[in-house]
Amino acid sequence: MKIRIYYEDTDISGFVYHSNYLKFCERARSELFFQKGLSPIDGNSHFVVSKLEAKFIQPAKFGDILEVDTQVTKIGGYSVQLLQTIFRDEVEIFRMDITLAYLKNGKLAKIDRKTKEIFYK
Amino acid sequence: MKIRIYYEDTDISGFVYHSNYLKFCERARSELFFQKGLSPIDGNSHFVVSKLEAKFIQPAKFGDILEVDTQVTKIGGYSVQLLQTIFRDEVEIFRMDITLAYLKNGKLAKIDRKTKEIFYK
Amino acid sequence: MKIRIYYEDTDISGFVYHSNYLKFCERARSELFFQKGLSPIDGNSHFVVSKLEAKFIQPAKFGDILEVDTQVTKIGGYSVQLLQTIFRDEVEIFRMDITLAYLKNGKLAKIDRKTKEIFYK
Amino acid sequence: MKIRIYYEDTDISGFVYHSNYLKFCERARSELFFQKGLSPIDGNSHFVVSKLEAKFIQPAKFGDILEVDTQVTKIGGYSVQLLQTIFRDEVEIFRMDITLAYLKNGKLAKIDRKTKEIFYK
Repeated sequence: MKIRIYYEDTDISGFVYHSNYLKFCERARSELFFQKGLSPIDGNSHFVVSKLEAKFIQPAKFGDILEVDTQVTKIGGYSVQLLQTIFRDEVEIFRMDITLAYLKNGKLAKIDRKTKEIFYK
Repeated sequence: MKIRIYYEDTDISGFVYHSNYLKFCERARSELFFQKGLSPIDGNSHFVVSKLEAKFIQPAKFGDILEVDTQVTKIGGYSVQLLQTIFRDEVEIFRMDITLAYLKNGKLAKIDRKTKEIFYK
Repeated sequence: MKIRIYYEDTDISGFVYHSNYLKFCERARSELFFQKGLSPIDGNSHFVVSKLEAKFIQPAKFGDILEVDTQVTKIGGYSVQLLQTIFRDEVEIFRMDITLAYLKNGKLAKIDRKTKEIFYK
Repeated sequence: MKIRIYYEDTDISGFVYHSNYLKFCERARSELFFQKGLSPIDGNSHFVVSKLEAKFIQPAKFGDILEVDTQVTKIGGYSVQLLQTIFRDEVEIFRMDITLAYLKNGKLAKIDRKTKEIFYK
């Protein structure tokens, strides 16, 4: 999962606007589904972010090519925990622990086996 | 309709990223509805952008306070044409002619009288 | 600090895209400066986000009016910690602990007294 | 130049937010430079958008893969005109005529031969 930094990602500081790293991580999560021919939105079911902890280590800049790595740290009955790390030239520049809750028709729901497997590759 | 320019609106050039002026105009269009206690999404009906012509006259910068003016130029059976102008300190910095098509259940639909009146104030 | 939710803030889920709550909090931080006639960018000095912990409690939706509350939790020599809470109709829907590092010419720098006072109102 | 549609690109309508098509076209313009090992920002010189005319033909949706085609329509002394078209499965869904002005130190400047050649591949 490679991501190029464009004008839209930067701000007046000359670097990437802080919340955009969260967008890059979301793209990587969606690609876990797309790459298997699936969609993150399965009928009335999908994941939502319930909490996250992020560390901004080094700023990314215009033209950079970043790589997002996604590791599953825990799969519970109703939620999934991931560790997502962003690298530039193999140097870690951003790290995030994120918890996703599974919703069906807008309500917390048990994650079925098929959906769990998506996170195990 | 006053709009403050924040970090998120700028890019590495130090000025506002070009497509964000379109966002500011959309906010002003939505406020035409919100200010009357209505919503731009009325059940299954809403407007979509079908075409636009924009002129970027002067760049806005971090901290600026902009004002958006919206004038109706034509109300047709199925679409509305607006002229939206953005000012900073009463100086015009952006201008856009925009045509909005009215959709009902995803299909082009006749604009009802009540909806037309929203544009006449 | 009131924030209206526009089309641009929502995504296909029908609710506000998760990273946009971080933008709303950044607007509130910038307004701490703007409201005093100052700018968050003071010559070559400004704050950058070094880490954050966010909790997504309830989703905001199109048309909502949100309020952002910002409390200083710690002012250190080189960084500031804030607790930012977003409310809708006085109900908490998002909370974030954020640490900002102070940079001068791109390097970590001691926060001067004048800058510290901005956070004490 | 292929572009995947993620959550961040969509809005409550379920489709891509209108101004994001402009972002996709900007990415394609920047790639004209990046693909040659260059940057759109060359010291104190870069292009800015001075006007555009856009036609929204069909909406793109979550998960779509779009392709952006960029054709030079005119290279003047101080500006460049491009026709940018976005396709999904070879069907045109968006088209934009855009004029870019060349700036050096913030002022309109003559485009040098080397920069002109970037647009001729």
